[in-house]
Amino acid sequence: MEKGPSSLQGRKYPAKNHARSVYRHFKDKNNLVSEEAVAFFISGEALELYQYCDQTKPLRQNRYFFYLSGVSIPGSHVLYEPSKDKLTLFLPDVDEDDIMWSGLPLSAEEASAKYDIDHVLYASNIPHTLEAVNANAKIYTTDMNKFNSNYAKYLVEGDPDFFYALDESRLCKDSYEIELMRHAARITDNCHLAVMSATPIETNETHIHAEFMYHALRQGSKNQSYDPICCSGTNCSTLHYVKNDDSIGPSRKSVLIDAGAEWDCYASDVTRCFPINGDWTKEHREIYDIVLRMQSDTMALIKPGVLWDVVHMHAHKILVENFLRLGIFKKEYSAEEIFESKISSGFFPHGLGHLLGMDTHDVGGRPNYDDANPLLRYLRLRRHLQVGMVLTDEPGVYFSPFLLKDILDDPSKSKYIDRNVLDKYWYIGGVRIEDDLLITDSGFENLTNITSDPEEISKIVKKGLSKGKSGFHVVV
Amino acid sequence: MEKGPSSLQGRKYPAKNHARSVYRHFKDKNNLVSEEAVAFFISGEALELYQYCDQTKPLRQNRYFFYLSGVSIPGSHVLYEPSKDKLTLFLPDVDEDDIMWSGLPLSAEEASAKYDIDHVLYASNIPHTLEAVNANAKIYTTDMNKFNSNYAKYLVEGDPDFFYALDESRLCKDSYEIELMRHAARITDNCHLAVMSATPIETNETHIHAEFMYHALRQGSKNQSYDPICCSGTNCSTLHYVKNDDSIGPSRKSVLIDAGAEWDCYASDVTRCFPINGDWTKEHREIYDIVLRMQSDTMALIKPGVLWDVVHMHAHKILVENFLRLGIFKKEYSAEEIFESKISSGFFPHGLGHLLGMDTHDVGGRPNYDDANPLLRYLRLRRHLQVGMVLTDEPGVYFSPFLLKDILDDPSKSKYIDRNVLDKYWYIGGVRIEDDLLITDSGFENLTNITSDPEEISKIVKKGLSKGKSGFHVVV
Repeated sequence: MEKGPSSLQGRKYPAKNHARSVYRHFKDKNNLVSEEAVAFFISGEALELYQYCDQTKPLRQNRYFFYLSGVSIPGSHVLYEPSKDKLTLFLPDVDEDDIMWSGLPLSAEEASAKYDIDHVLYASNIPHTLEAVNANAKIYTTDMNKFNSNYAKYLVEGDPDFFYALDESRLCKDSYEIELMRHAARITDNCHLAVMSATPIETNETHIHAEFMYHALRQGSKNQSYDPICCSGTNCSTLHYVKNDDSIGPSRKSVLIDAGAEWDCYASDVTRCFPINGDWTKEHREIYDIVLRMQSDTMALIKPGVLWDVVHMHAHKILVENFLRLGIFKKEYSAEEIFESKISSGFFPHGLGHLLGMDTHDVGGRPNYDDANPLLRYLRLRRHLQVGMVLTDEPGVYFSPFLLKDILDDPSKSKYIDRNVLDKYWYIGGVRIEDDLLITDSGFENLTNITSDPEEISKIVKKGLSKGKSGFHVVV
Repeated sequence: MEKGPSSLQGRKYPAKNHARSVYRHFKDKNNLVSEEAVAFFISGEALELYQYCDQTKPLRQNRYFFYLSGVSIPGSHVLYEPSKDKLTLFLPDVDEDDIMWSGLPLSAEEASAKYDIDHVLYASNIPHTLEAVNANAKIYTTDMNKFNSNYAKYLVEGDPDFFYALDESRLCKDSYEIELMRHAARITDNCHLAVMSATPIETNETHIHAEFMYHALRQGSKNQSYDPICCSGTNCSTLHYVKNDDSIGPSRKSVLIDAGAEWDCYASDVTRCFPINGDWTKEHREIYDIVLRMQSDTMALIKPGVLWDVVHMHAHKILVENFLRLGIFKKEYSAEEIFESKISSGFFPHGLGHLLGMDTHDVGGRPNYDDANPLLRYLRLRRHLQVGMVLTDEPGVYFSPFLLKDILDDPSKSKYIDRNVLDKYWYIGGVRIEDDLLITDSGFENLTNITSDPEEISKIVKKGLSKGKSGFHVVV
């Protein structure tokens, strides 16, 4: 396993180019710095135990470290010297005791062959190496933490220009990164298909969660990009629902699953909704069609140079128009007036999408969580689109008593809403449709290929139901 | 889901009795302390983000906190006042913003009904509550950490007698804890059965891992007690192998899986071995039978009052006798001489078993990792058995070039070994059989019910092979 996409066989993660790119951004931002005077040093995460037991915490590699190294080995460090254009990896010192329990670690020679690194040393060489480099250069690191604090005297921590350079460099993905993200997206497509096909044995949200994780792990994806959100019925109105443990009874007809597999530290992030028995209820389908329209119409606007705020606002306009059509919003008011009232934020409280990369909510989006406009406050991407960005397009419509309380309690806002019509939709909970898009010269490429067509989805679910499941599933 | 065993419906986790028990042990250890002068305060784990992203780290509840509360809600704290026999739970203060994303938290009233707690307050009440208690009592906590450091001025940290009292109290499980462990063990039985049955689609160690996790999660077990060890062929000689990503080719005939589901913070820990095609090779079966004999013969010794060291040593004696029989040890030497040479530690380097409870390697075992005797150095339990202890019986035999290097390079030790015979066994890697045992008045009860009979295992694997698998499995 862990082989990855065939398109990357024989290629190395381009750590060296990443280091050069970070340096270029750093230099552009900070004209005073000459090549000789600068170096970068980043420590990766190391294995740690939980307090009061000998159990290892799950390791999530520091993304800045991975970006400059491509290395997932715990306890490693990387140094880039622009003046020599030299990338040095420091592997953890070998612990003989550890070999007994965990086997032989990768050798320096094997690491040299595997990674896009000029020089491989062991951690015991860090102090004298940094001391020598420090004689001629300021050595920038991210923040001091338990992994680099031993070397504090050689390091400059937390410089905003260094973070700027790292984040701007990570903003647009190169061809290698895109292949990793395509691979994560393919795995995720298969997982969502498996979930939709497995409805006969899905009588609890946990079963949906299990089905997704199972197929991701079978395909070699050991980590999820984020905790899967698997919900049904009114639970779908909780945006970051992760309990995933309610039974899917007859009253819970709608299912929402937001889950994405990770591949080599690169994320996918996909949401699909389906009716548990394959038959859309009238209201579920009405809302689904609106959300699908919000997605397709916003996709039509996507190309380099477009401000994402504008695309996001367009989704709200489609919501308002269609809520007027359904009668949830009263037809005596104009779409413009309702849009200006900002009450659509109660039904679509999150952003239309966010940057995606090594982090699910990737760096460089420049959000403004203090924005006075509630329509824009939670939008995590506030920039013009550029070729090589990967972002999600994920409109949603929710019926949450909690999210709508302030609006329904305020006569100046509730006047737009027909409560009798609204009351027919609570049971759905919510609908979200989310795809991962790569910005290209001509517009975008959708990395997500699992269908979102409601008729197709209905067929997939019913095909699963008609087949039943084989007897090996243990149901307790 | 999350319903748990039917035997516990309507019962509460006995937090109050646990607090009383800790106090009794504390008092016994420290005669000077009067009831009025002492209180206990423990903070649970809180949610934290990974550095440089908005992703939540997986939460593993602090076991000491759980023992005194039964509460898994992040950011909670518990206070026990022996003078009033009063247990107070502090829930985290309600964060309105968080409700938008994550839904409504459990209310104080709901917490009162759910937990064995006298009084439920919110965290904002901690300072004045501790201040009042502190007027009359020393308030003991475990160690200072980021979760209790705000209250440092009221707390006495790291007192060895407090840890002693906690650990001695956790040593023997009460009836409620035993039901939780029975439930975890039942889930684990089903998972191991599923893994043995799924061989047609298991062409990589990752598939074995996926199969186990899938069935655990389907049964509502969200956490594994520890990272599953799924290995094949020579990988089975790495004791804590967790890469789980080698392909299971024709040359890798042996499979070892060491995995256990967790239920409500209580662990199970089970190892099974099987031949990937259902047919034991001659050597694999020979070693399997020795390990099974090591387990059954040591089980026959288990009853209250027996020193675990003695049981462990008995396993080594069985290994030596049987290696003589197979000719791996040369018949010109006596079993006694070979046993005294301690070379069996190269084939069976770990302990026969460890305490099991909330931690996989549970507290209170009093190991001595500096023991001069290599046969005893890694034995995690060095006590006389008591009713209510739960422990593993897990003999193993391994053929690891690394583990055997020092022995094979030392003529005074290698003289006992027939290399020609030994060489026939390397390909197996290793065999371990592990069950979870509850010590009872009359001996023990085996909580593990998945078969370890080699003929039965062969039948299960072959039955899975003959059935094949349904087509819904995505194989990429």
